[in-house]
Amino acid sequence: MCRFEHQGAERSGIVLNETVVDLHWAAPELAERFAPGDTRTLLTLGGEALAELEAIARAAPAEARQPLGDVSLLAPIADPSKILCSWVNYLNPAMAKLPDQPVFFSKFDSAITGPTSDIILPRIAGDIVVEPEMTAIIGKRGRHIAEQDALSHVAGYTIVNDVTAFSHRLQVIVGSPGPYAMAKTFDSFAPSGPWITTRDEIADPHDLEVRQYLNGDLRTSANTSEAVFKLPKLISYLSGFFELRPGDMILTGSPPPNAGKPEFLKAGDRVRIEIEGLGHIESGVVEETA
Amino acid sequence: MCRFEHQGAERSGIVLNETVVDLHWAAPELAERFAPGDTRTLLTLGGEALAELEAIARAAPAEARQPLGDVSLLAPIADPSKILCSWVNYLNPAMAKLPDQPVFFSKFDSAITGPTSDIILPRIAGDIVVEPEMTAIIGKRGRHIAEQDALSHVAGYTIVNDVTAFSHRLQVIVGSPGPYAMAKTFDSFAPSGPWITTRDEIADPHDLEVRQYLNGDLRTSANTSEAVFKLPKLISYLSGFFELRPGDMILTGSPPPNAGKPEFLKAGDRVRIEIEGLGHIESGVVEETA
Repeated sequence: MCRFEHQGAERSGIVLNETVVDLHWAAPELAERFAPGDTRTLLTLGGEALAELEAIARAAPAEARQPLGDVSLLAPIADPSKILCSWVNYLNPAMAKLPDQPVFFSKFDSAITGPTSDIILPRIAGDIVVEPEMTAIIGKRGRHIAEQDALSHVAGYTIVNDVTAFSHRLQVIVGSPGPYAMAKTFDSFAPSGPWITTRDEIADPHDLEVRQYLNGDLRTSANTSEAVFKLPKLISYLSGFFELRPGDMILTGSPPPNAGKPEFLKAGDRVRIEIEGLGHIESGVVEETA
Repeated sequence: MCRFEHQGAERSGIVLNETVVDLHWAAPELAERFAPGDTRTLLTLGGEALAELEAIARAAPAEARQPLGDVSLLAPIADPSKILCSWVNYLNPAMAKLPDQPVFFSKFDSAITGPTSDIILPRIAGDIVVEPEMTAIIGKRGRHIAEQDALSHVAGYTIVNDVTAFSHRLQVIVGSPGPYAMAKTFDSFAPSGPWITTRDEIADPHDLEVRQYLNGDLRTSANTSEAVFKLPKLISYLSGFFELRPGDMILTGSPPPNAGKPEFLKAGDRVRIEIEGLGHIESGVVEETA
């Protein structure tokens, strides 16, 4: 499922065979259940509703469809309750040893932008890097979820670029690193999309190729099988702390670049991230002007 | 302004002379502008709208009013985009020196509960402490806000208890403290309210007495004037990172308890926090059962 813009308004759609079906165009009565563009409420309707929406999309008349290339896609979720980001979840040559349990930081939803939106280099920060991450979207509420039940709480998957300002990565306070999130949550630091691929379409979320390109050159080539902690563990762990809610995003960590260390972005760069089965996102890079 | 529950539904109200005026009861046409209980949208209407709502409340018929004591108050904002929490913003005997700039961590909105709701002691964490904090609510969008303009972006103030699990305060990872937020964001770890006191009612947010009681005994007695970084600096600093949006909450840090170090909560405790001009919140403490 996707969010897209049409004539200045947010819409909800289903992607089928390189076309986007506008759900509320095909079935206006859906507006009683969720507003166009309100993916979070759509997800609360549950799995049966999603199957019903797909049936509506498959039966939709030609007038309700647009070629994918003609549509301006938006971030699939604009306002998640939580953006949960795995820290150090892939082997990294800089780390002496790996954590023995999952570690998380967060982003704010103000960081979210669409799959083709620009990354804005902040006026007050530098050394900006790209982090390509397979991301799970929660579809069903839960607390204290067992690992074997965890994937049943996932609605689907998308791509997020966990953009990071190395200049603010570790704020050294009173002699030791302090809270961490500010480096991660400048405006535009969470390009995401292109859509949510539903869970049933992905046989194993931890067997997907991840590729990141900078100006057309391959910079990262990895597989989500290399993640230290897999989604069942991450979801189970997180649900011990708080209720997971529909729309919550769980970023599963970024594999290190092939060269071992990342490059810093500059204005004019183009960043492309592909994840097998999930599509791709591609961002320009611009200086902050406002 | 406040959120409250009436016959199982969320409502929006204005507190006047120990009564709560139900805004949509007094003026049903307001529903076109914000849904009952949707404080975030209410705040986006801006300062003129707030003055208009107060006029509606003052002119409301007796039937639209209920005694404050008869009403079940809810957290004034259920779904802020950001809960921004100041770290170490009061002199603390345990700190060797203070940070030279503001430091922030975050909570998730799933932690928010009402002004009389229970604090739930998590099954997986221990050493739970109370942190009483004067909190600003953003009313107007902004980026790169100058310190002298900062308070004009504030809609009002409320009280938040920044409940913290010391057992998870510093996750020691690969030899140094890592991300920090998980200790702060268990479900029920942000009791808040009792309502939003609008900015015009508070001459100086940094001249307010803060008192915290445990089972009726005074444990913290301080003044918001003791904060290291004041709201104009905090707001200006944060707005360099991202857009501040209506409903965003800025917790200004907790003064240390009079005894120097905090006590750990146990089931059956009662926690009361009063801030001059803002009212009080009072929570029971229970074990997690679910």
